[in-house]
Amino acid sequence: MNPDIQRERENATFNTDLLTYILDGGQEKTRRRREIESLVISDADFQQEDANFLSRSERYDAAVRKSAQMILKLREYGISDPEEIYAYKNCVHRGRPEPLDLHLGMFLPTLLNQATPEQQEAFFMPAWNLEIIGTYAQTEMGHGTFIRGLETTATYDPATQEFVMNSPTISSIKWWPGGLGKTSNHAIVLAQLYTKGICHGLHAFIVPIRSMSTHEPLPGIEVGDIGPKFGFDEVDNGYLKMDNVRIPRMNMLMKYAKVERDGTYQKPPSAKLTYGTMVFIRSMIVGESSRALSKACTIAIRYSSVRHQSELRPGEPEPQILDYQTQQYKLFPLLATAYAFKFVGQYMTETYHRITGDINQGDFSELPELHALSAGLKAFTTWVANGGIEVCRMSCGGHGYSRCSSLPDIYVTFTPTCTYEGENTVMMLQTARYLVKSYRQASTGQQLSGIVSYLNEAHQRLQAQPVSSRPTVVNISDLASLVEAYKLRAAKLVEVAAKSLQGELQKSRSPEDAWNNSSIDLVRASDAHCHYVVVKLFAAKLGEISDTGVHSALSTLALLYALHGVAQNSGDFLQAGLLTVPQLSSVSQRLKDILAQVRTNAVALVDAFDYRDEMLNSVLGRYDGNIYEHMFEWARKSPLNRTEVHESYHKYLKPLQSKL
Amino acid sequence: MNPDIQRERENATFNTDLLTYILDGGQEKTRRRREIESLVISDADFQQEDANFLSRSERYDAAVRKSAQMILKLREYGISDPEEIYAYKNCVHRGRPEPLDLHLGMFLPTLLNQATPEQQEAFFMPAWNLEIIGTYAQTEMGHGTFIRGLETTATYDPATQEFVMNSPTISSIKWWPGGLGKTSNHAIVLAQLYTKGICHGLHAFIVPIRSMSTHEPLPGIEVGDIGPKFGFDEVDNGYLKMDNVRIPRMNMLMKYAKVERDGTYQKPPSAKLTYGTMVFIRSMIVGESSRALSKACTIAIRYSSVRHQSELRPGEPEPQILDYQTQQYKLFPLLATAYAFKFVGQYMTETYHRITGDINQGDFSELPELHALSAGLKAFTTWVANGGIEVCRMSCGGHGYSRCSSLPDIYVTFTPTCTYEGENTVMMLQTARYLVKSYRQASTGQQLSGIVSYLNEAHQRLQAQPVSSRPTVVNISDLASLVEAYKLRAAKLVEVAAKSLQGELQKSRSPEDAWNNSSIDLVRASDAHCHYVVVKLFAAKLGEISDTGVHSALSTLALLYALHGVAQNSGDFLQAGLLTVPQLSSVSQRLKDILAQVRTNAVALVDAFDYRDEMLNSVLGRYDGNIYEHMFEWARKSPLNRTEVHESYHKYLKPLQSKL
Repeated sequence: MNPDIQRERENATFNTDLLTYILDGGQEKTRRRREIESLVISDADFQQEDANFLSRSERYDAAVRKSAQMILKLREYGISDPEEIYAYKNCVHRGRPEPLDLHLGMFLPTLLNQATPEQQEAFFMPAWNLEIIGTYAQTEMGHGTFIRGLETTATYDPATQEFVMNSPTISSIKWWPGGLGKTSNHAIVLAQLYTKGICHGLHAFIVPIRSMSTHEPLPGIEVGDIGPKFGFDEVDNGYLKMDNVRIPRMNMLMKYAKVERDGTYQKPPSAKLTYGTMVFIRSMIVGESSRALSKACTIAIRYSSVRHQSELRPGEPEPQILDYQTQQYKLFPLLATAYAFKFVGQYMTETYHRITGDINQGDFSELPELHALSAGLKAFTTWVANGGIEVCRMSCGGHGYSRCSSLPDIYVTFTPTCTYEGENTVMMLQTARYLVKSYRQASTGQQLSGIVSYLNEAHQRLQAQPVSSRPTVVNISDLASLVEAYKLRAAKLVEVAAKSLQGELQKSRSPEDAWNNSSIDLVRASDAHCHYVVVKLFAAKLGEISDTGVHSALSTLALLYALHGVAQNSGDFLQAGLLTVPQLSSVSQRLKDILAQVRTNAVALVDAFDYRDEMLNSVLGRYDGNIYEHMFEWARKSPLNRTEVHESYHKYLKPLQSKL
Repeated sequence: MNPDIQRERENATFNTDLLTYILDGGQEKTRRRREIESLVISDADFQQEDANFLSRSERYDAAVRKSAQMILKLREYGISDPEEIYAYKNCVHRGRPEPLDLHLGMFLPTLLNQATPEQQEAFFMPAWNLEIIGTYAQTEMGHGTFIRGLETTATYDPATQEFVMNSPTISSIKWWPGGLGKTSNHAIVLAQLYTKGICHGLHAFIVPIRSMSTHEPLPGIEVGDIGPKFGFDEVDNGYLKMDNVRIPRMNMLMKYAKVERDGTYQKPPSAKLTYGTMVFIRSMIVGESSRALSKACTIAIRYSSVRHQSELRPGEPEPQILDYQTQQYKLFPLLATAYAFKFVGQYMTETYHRITGDINQGDFSELPELHALSAGLKAFTTWVANGGIEVCRMSCGGHGYSRCSSLPDIYVTFTPTCTYEGENTVMMLQTARYLVKSYRQASTGQQLSGIVSYLNEAHQRLQAQPVSSRPTVVNISDLASLVEAYKLRAAKLVEVAAKSLQGELQKSRSPEDAWNNSSIDLVRASDAHCHYVVVKLFAAKLGEISDTGVHSALSTLALLYALHGVAQNSGDFLQAGLLTVPQLSSVSQRLKDILAQVRTNAVALVDAFDYRDEMLNSVLGRYDGNIYEHMFEWARKSPLNRTEVHESYHKYLKPLQSKL
């Protein structure tokens, strides 16, 4: 053990295990998670060469091998709880996406949710046993966000009782679905349904794409890999072009909408049912934001505790770089953010499960709010984490660029979350739509409930008093007071956005133009709303924590999170009259004091995330802090070092010398 | 030609060629640059498979091949002007770094600057003819920023008149130098010089590391590649461990410092001489910030002009995504920034050349200011461009993640600039040191000259009037007035930092602690100073432009750049009393108006950067806008598509099916 990092741990003022239990949701869950991790990590079948040294084709190959092993082992061990399957899978693939993700996460669940009993009979068991390997093909080359614009067609032919599937244009080619390129032999395809000459909009169809015996593409099908990406090397995101591909009528998923034998179309009963899945996935992504950021923080903070550089005092040894205030100012707010997002993710999941119960009993009343919240928080947390990972990487100096740090890998694995499952700006605007609607309701005297209820009082408050005469509300050392300030900031920015929209409506050609011309303000309002929710939930979480050591450490982080946000958005708080200019100086000073406090516990706070070295896969983030010897060992394995003299020397450099 | 992008070009209000000439520094320079580009791009010897489809070893191999070709062709064509060599090289390697970069850019120049005539005789021509291939080995595994901390030793042995080179610890292993791993057979090694038992600090030594006949590592040398990184796949950044490696006395570069035969040490006359090179390289990096960001903007803006998505008005066709205000708000400020940095880069280069003339005549007076400015601007521009490239990438939705967009490649190639040649935070603090020193001089009544002269008047002005009673100075539609506001903001933040430092000095253990405890404020002050310089130089550039169409388009961009910065940093402007709360709302509205104005010329403004398709290498950024068909064509070439059925199917999936 490196003595620097050892000392950091000795100086911590709380018990890291207790905090780990809180993060996992209880001691028993921690125990079980660790048990699953040990199961995977000690399993010889899951050992492999460092993925950084493999070509993309080799990485895909290794991932397929591990996924196949995983399926067998999950059954062998009888692991069937979805959360445990997820934990096991995550451990096998070290947090990276893998070729069967869409089969397990989309194809099977969609069958369960949207297939008739007859269809389930036909497709589910073959899919469960991987005779059918499926994916979910929605996005097209020319169509992502706006799914009504999808061009793929499914035209019913009553003569043969088949659907004829077509990709009528280049832009209609299915593009991006994971596992589509090489792995899957079936796809659930979203297509515009035509029957009796009428288009009934998007519906889902099960399309066989490769032979179940030879795995060769079927007639009329052109399928392949879409090529290398920024990360995601393990996944064969694919394309699919269909030319008059005929599938039986029963391959349309007909639990809700139906096409009769004669081509008569029956509408589905409700459109709201698909909301739930979206909400669930976006809640998961909020948790993913915390996970990715907490990994990056673990690496950067451990590294900063063992890396020495420059001099603070002449003649003394080089200090740990964690002692530099600028380094603390980069990393500690991100550490606080990782905790904040963890608690937000927990809240989202709990709320989702609670509301799902209501939905199953026919009560949809809370769904719109959760839908709006999950959209905004998905965008808010992924953007922040995305930028934060890169700050962590760059805080490690040159070594952060090396793939042995794992930081580049964390980034490229995470960054697509800003785009998939709802592009972030579009998500922010969805939340804004809900906020503006709520604001209008409050303005007309309706009493709002739930998380937007602040628009009731805030509306009155902001109306009643001009900014200059309002008393300053913030006590910058009091978290509750800061939560209040975030609330009023959000209220103010929702008001600004609503008024901007109102103004545009009076001069625009259409409501849509007015919306577009206010969209900068609308995104800002959503952002402030989400920021408020995060601060509020972090503060609320503190109330659940009984251990004083943990409570104290987390309270400091919560205050750091809140004050850092005030400093970063000081214009908003000044503009809304929530803060005075002299207070802003106090915020700066207070932040410095808090950084010094967090310094004591920084390593313990990342230890509590409890990432095993095998999961982090980072030389810089090693638990024992012995980085240099392992970096050297890692480098020697680099493929370029397999020979002392690279063949390019003989091919190009040696001949060149004789020509010059 | 895609009709959308065609229409964009027809609607432009200025002549793009005229703007290109301004960016190149004159019509003749544009002509010559285009000539060189044509030379390279039409050259069959420089064709190769898309690098995205190659393994790292193949990429390195291809780069060595092209570098070797390049050396031959440069001599064949008689291209010898450094700028033209740079342009040719940049074109051959499509803007990517390559294995001979350090040989050409550091090894040869260091020989020219620091070798004695006798040493030049011995080493220069062999190096010029690539018998000697060299690199420059400074950074060690444990030592980057703080070069005095380097551990490598060179101990003089008068008995044999040799230096004995050693890497005494793991952390002393040379780490990162480009071309060190496999390409070079010599390295200029920075080491602590010991003679007669005394350490004289760092000096440079020419160390043979591989045999000039077999290219095998020499005895006592352990050398290799440091492994895969975030980008830089073409370069064999390497490690070097030396164990009692003996080199002749004349292998120490002795133009300035000397070691006599008997081991007597002679000091160099001045330390300032090495400043010049650092300033030059940092100025180049400022230009690189503009280049990388302008490439990313070209791709994102062209793509946004041909991509259609969602609906603005029901029933109408999907609009170009460039029509969305949120998309404009992401991209147009970055477009303005790319222009701003281009002009800053031009200014830095001109100033460097002017001052170099002075230095050659023994006048060092302007060097400290340029040194401070180049440090801060290097950090300021690389940070902004770094984040900006990712905003461009994410603004392209899913397709931005595909390597066919080239955006991931631009990012990973650029992002190391935030760390190399001076870590950005360290750079900001260097500039801050100069600012605080200048501020103190102004406070004591000294009259400052040069770019910090604003601290004279600002000091008086800020002292004289309390914030609340000061008249608001900004006319938000007037660029000159905004420049003034940026100046006063910088002055205010320099003052805040200086006072913070003063306060800390009164309570700290040492000046170094005080500095550290004020470093957040110091970085903010540098940032504001650099921001002011950028706005000022952009405004100044407008004065040089005579064509009214170009002038008008660039004036709009300059105003956008300035106002966007005000909006992003509104807290600073409010805090300094430079802006009122109502004005801030006007800024928002004005920004929206400007976005709409820039919309008209957006495509023409990126066309003026004049990147050939071969240089951008981006399907999304194609000049003709025909993206979808070419994306499909590119994907079909993906290595995973070389066979219809990937071998992993037969190895893992097929056997799995029989087991389930």
